[in-house]
Amino acid sequence: MAAQLINESTKGVFVICPTPFLDDGGLDLDSVDRLVDFYLEKGVSGFTILGLLGEATKLTPDESRSVMARYLARIDGARPVIVGASNPGTDNLVRFANDAMDAGAAGVMVAPLPGLKTDDQVYAYWETVLSRLGPDIPVCYQDYPQTTTVVTSVAVLHRLIDAFPNLVMLKHEESPGLTKITRLRERSDTGEGRRISILVGNGGLHLPQELRRGVDGAMTGFAYPEMLVAVCDRFFAGDAEGAEDVFDAYLPILRHEQQLGFGFAVRKEILRRRGAIATAHVRHPGPKLSPRDLQELDELLARLDRALAG
Amino acid sequence: MAAQLINESTKGVFVICPTPFLDDGGLDLDSVDRLVDFYLEKGVSGFTILGLLGEATKLTPDESRSVMARYLARIDGARPVIVGASNPGTDNLVRFANDAMDAGAAGVMVAPLPGLKTDDQVYAYWETVLSRLGPDIPVCYQDYPQTTTVVTSVAVLHRLIDAFPNLVMLKHEESPGLTKITRLRERSDTGEGRRISILVGNGGLHLPQELRRGVDGAMTGFAYPEMLVAVCDRFFAGDAEGAEDVFDAYLPILRHEQQLGFGFAVRKEILRRRGAIATAHVRHPGPKLSPRDLQELDELLARLDRALAG
Amino acid sequence: MAAQLINESTKGVFVICPTPFLDDGGLDLDSVDRLVDFYLEKGVSGFTILGLLGEATKLTPDESRSVMARYLARIDGARPVIVGASNPGTDNLVRFANDAMDAGAAGVMVAPLPGLKTDDQVYAYWETVLSRLGPDIPVCYQDYPQTTTVVTSVAVLHRLIDAFPNLVMLKHEESPGLTKITRLRERSDTGEGRRISILVGNGGLHLPQELRRGVDGAMTGFAYPEMLVAVCDRFFAGDAEGAEDVFDAYLPILRHEQQLGFGFAVRKEILRRRGAIATAHVRHPGPKLSPRDLQELDELLARLDRALAG
Amino acid sequence: MAAQLINESTKGVFVICPTPFLDDGGLDLDSVDRLVDFYLEKGVSGFTILGLLGEATKLTPDESRSVMARYLARIDGARPVIVGASNPGTDNLVRFANDAMDAGAAGVMVAPLPGLKTDDQVYAYWETVLSRLGPDIPVCYQDYPQTTTVVTSVAVLHRLIDAFPNLVMLKHEESPGLTKITRLRERSDTGEGRRISILVGNGGLHLPQELRRGVDGAMTGFAYPEMLVAVCDRFFAGDAEGAEDVFDAYLPILRHEQQLGFGFAVRKEILRRRGAIATAHVRHPGPKLSPRDLQELDELLARLDRALAG
Repeated sequence: MAAQLINESTKGVFVICPTPFLDDGGLDLDSVDRLVDFYLEKGVSGFTILGLLGEATKLTPDESRSVMARYLARIDGARPVIVGASNPGTDNLVRFANDAMDAGAAGVMVAPLPGLKTDDQVYAYWETVLSRLGPDIPVCYQDYPQTTTVVTSVAVLHRLIDAFPNLVMLKHEESPGLTKITRLRERSDTGEGRRISILVGNGGLHLPQELRRGVDGAMTGFAYPEMLVAVCDRFFAGDAEGAEDVFDAYLPILRHEQQLGFGFAVRKEILRRRGAIATAHVRHPGPKLSPRDLQELDELLARLDRALAG
Repeated sequence: MAAQLINESTKGVFVICPTPFLDDGGLDLDSVDRLVDFYLEKGVSGFTILGLLGEATKLTPDESRSVMARYLARIDGARPVIVGASNPGTDNLVRFANDAMDAGAAGVMVAPLPGLKTDDQVYAYWETVLSRLGPDIPVCYQDYPQTTTVVTSVAVLHRLIDAFPNLVMLKHEESPGLTKITRLRERSDTGEGRRISILVGNGGLHLPQELRRGVDGAMTGFAYPEMLVAVCDRFFAGDAEGAEDVFDAYLPILRHEQQLGFGFAVRKEILRRRGAIATAHVRHPGPKLSPRDLQELDELLARLDRALAG
Repeated sequence: MAAQLINESTKGVFVICPTPFLDDGGLDLDSVDRLVDFYLEKGVSGFTILGLLGEATKLTPDESRSVMARYLARIDGARPVIVGASNPGTDNLVRFANDAMDAGAAGVMVAPLPGLKTDDQVYAYWETVLSRLGPDIPVCYQDYPQTTTVVTSVAVLHRLIDAFPNLVMLKHEESPGLTKITRLRERSDTGEGRRISILVGNGGLHLPQELRRGVDGAMTGFAYPEMLVAVCDRFFAGDAEGAEDVFDAYLPILRHEQQLGFGFAVRKEILRRRGAIATAHVRHPGPKLSPRDLQELDELLARLDRALAG
Repeated sequence: MAAQLINESTKGVFVICPTPFLDDGGLDLDSVDRLVDFYLEKGVSGFTILGLLGEATKLTPDESRSVMARYLARIDGARPVIVGASNPGTDNLVRFANDAMDAGAAGVMVAPLPGLKTDDQVYAYWETVLSRLGPDIPVCYQDYPQTTTVVTSVAVLHRLIDAFPNLVMLKHEESPGLTKITRLRERSDTGEGRRISILVGNGGLHLPQELRRGVDGAMTGFAYPEMLVAVCDRFFAGDAEGAEDVFDAYLPILRHEQQLGFGFAVRKEILRRRGAIATAHVRHPGPKLSPRDLQELDELLARLDRALAG
């Protein structure tokens, strides 16, 4: 099936996908299939693979290609797939992005290189990257200073949006970041600049507020994507309060999963418990849950069950 | 009334107090009285003043003394008062800590100096500070790497607990930090080391889980301290699930207020709306709420009202 | 004697002055007199007090005023004196800056608040600070990301130079930073913007190259200010190579003293050996030289003596 | 020829090698041969490839293997070759390290993963890495906090030295770092722990002082390795002052080349001028020299020529 490309109007919930491993650390491609089916059943609008949660930097190049191929094959055009392409070297970044597009990706996600400081440094990096990717590769800007250390100003985003039509989406993860959304939307609302898609990350921790400020959905790996889907659906159907009611029921587990690093292991464990992957293995270096952590998770999940039942 | 000193068994909710200002930026000492009455009415176990939320670094030394004197006078021994004493110079730190104790403080809170890196560097700093403060000044260790950049290992805490009896309390704000609590408690539970009081910060974002792992309460400035009090009371009465039910109702506003920097202004604004302070003024440099931010807060507080009513 | 204010044309060597202490940590105001005489005898063009080397953050407000008064009294208008006024609170910053000017300072030096990230954040901070200081207080911008973490772009400096005539001087300490000098000078050379004074820091580690790129001198605490004076004098007299010959003789000790933190103690020790201060005491927290460090310094200073004799 | 493995007694100058590129960014393997011949003619004791200067993170895996193969083939056992093996994923790290050893490397160099904070975190990372590399792969610990942000305490190094015989060498680049050398040597001198080889980095900026404190040589990419060789030779022959005389002549250019980031381009440009590589191309993202930078380099190199002639 022909790939659907992402664009400035892309909406909904793009789920950030883990890379499933076997207990011995090898790739578990069967679990890729299970994950895809699980996510499709939960109603996601799209997929994002080979990002941080995908442990992309711990894969060999061959493994990356295998994981990408398997995801693309199983999804089979049913939904757009964004592929993480960040790379310390721009040649490698561009080569892999082109490979991904050739394989059927809907676009690529790139984060700015750690260490960039001033507005001009951030802009110059993207000027090269977006130019070299070229007009045919739609790009999602991963704006995640908590891991990259790069703080991207609204002014830089405006300059890039004006100069590069292939910049079509922002994965918004700066935190606190509500005002940033408002400032971006104010500019496009007044016609001063192009409107791009904004999907929020950080597990969706502030999703209801972010929707009210004008985002188009979420791109995150929260292990209950059906909640994110329901929240977005209700919100876009005009029921902001109903959306937030759904959200609040899941908030205790969401804020638990949202702990940086540690929450990564929580997320894989929940996906395992939900049957979406065979094991919760994380490659070294990475977090591991202790028996005490697992017991705590039991308690939290039992509370979630009661809340959903109640 | 004689001051009550904090010690290893101190429990409950110590509220982190803001410093109230007038709209012109001057001290609003009348609001100190209102705040004290407000907090006492909400049932707090103690007070912590002149910390980050107290904008201590933006006060003149004379203002610091005025604020401290007013808090101590109004509280008048009804509850213990911890005074923030962090300082880039150790002479100043020790002098101010002694002044605070002489004025009736129950102990002082100190954070490690930004820039300390290795275990030995962190230990050496505290070795000097705790020695110079001496055995008669009970110390609360503010462990808040998000603002200090100093990550304190469990090993360093164990060494300090063994060496310095005046280290009686940990304000635990490392995040993620659940495992740190468990490791500290495991050691004292097995009798390998002294047990100290642990009160958690970060707005109480993970308070139910932290209580289950053995903390003694919270020390934070969440603008609804009655929730923290109710959660601790229920938990210590044996009703962990009931405690968490109370907590969950407030979680949406808590996680909104918990945004670093921005949330500081949210907190003062809620306290103003609740009548605890006259204005939400924050001294420069500091965050300010926009009309859009205030509208968002209206919505969130309306939801809280409905949740509490429901 | 009437104070000389610094301005856009200020040139030469402004020496960054330590605060001398007694061995018991108390102020040593007699050594302030000795230091002033020492520096005047070495031919400095001006003084900068109460900066990092002045351990300003470890002084009480009363001590700061005493140190400032003693420096100003001994210098007695013979040279301009810049006073460090950085402060986490803007009210305190402005109050102290006005006090310093009233006492006879030639201007104040301010560094941007740690934690500022984007161009707009840096600009907004300075907009408030420079506005509130007002047109009558000449300001030196301390651009020292190694300690503040704030990287100031050339674009922000241009905006500030255009908007605030009281910004008259840059203490340039970003490293690497040669290109920054060239970009600043290119703009004023072509008449696009106002030219301000640029004095370089970092011990003067790249002073000959910086002079060739257009700076007006140095503002640093290198313990042999006569070298900096000679280098600038020769360079401005047209003898760039001769200036660099003088520089190179001192480079081994300069690069030794230029070690961040550690070099601070080296500098005070050299000043002590040269008779400029009574003891090399640094207040806690601060670096201390071990016997091995002192022996190493013996060797390096012996080499310097031989080089100067040869 | 059989590979020589590095060990605790390895001494001398290991040169950090760049990866030469063509002007179009492709690999320039012919220049690898020229570089090897150049370095051998300058008398280096060994080579280190695929490190930071080798732009390892910007190569494809195939390119890495090509570069390694070409270096190993040209050196042909004449000198030991250390191969950089740092990797965000430990599986990839171990696999590549084994490949390198199979290809004829003398050992691997690994830096700790960025983000590690406490002593226990640093130790735990290395415990896994050194265990998995196993006893047959000699490891050089790259201790370079300026780029990794990881500060390794002396205590952690002692623990690792005691536990892992395959840790045979420290590439010492913490700065300031003279005391760290002394503390490491004091322990092995008193027989409390195993003595490992210490080679210093940072361009050799403090090499004479570091040799006097007990290091075994340098591992750095300074573009005049013959100076490093001469300094080490004279020092180990008992002529410490003569060694430092040689050093001081090159110090002006060394401190210019030692500027982080920028100096990387200076280094490649000097190697190009010396005929060691065909072009100074650096892959994106990376520093570039402007005409003004090149003119400055002309002046500095002319001064060096005069100093060496004089």
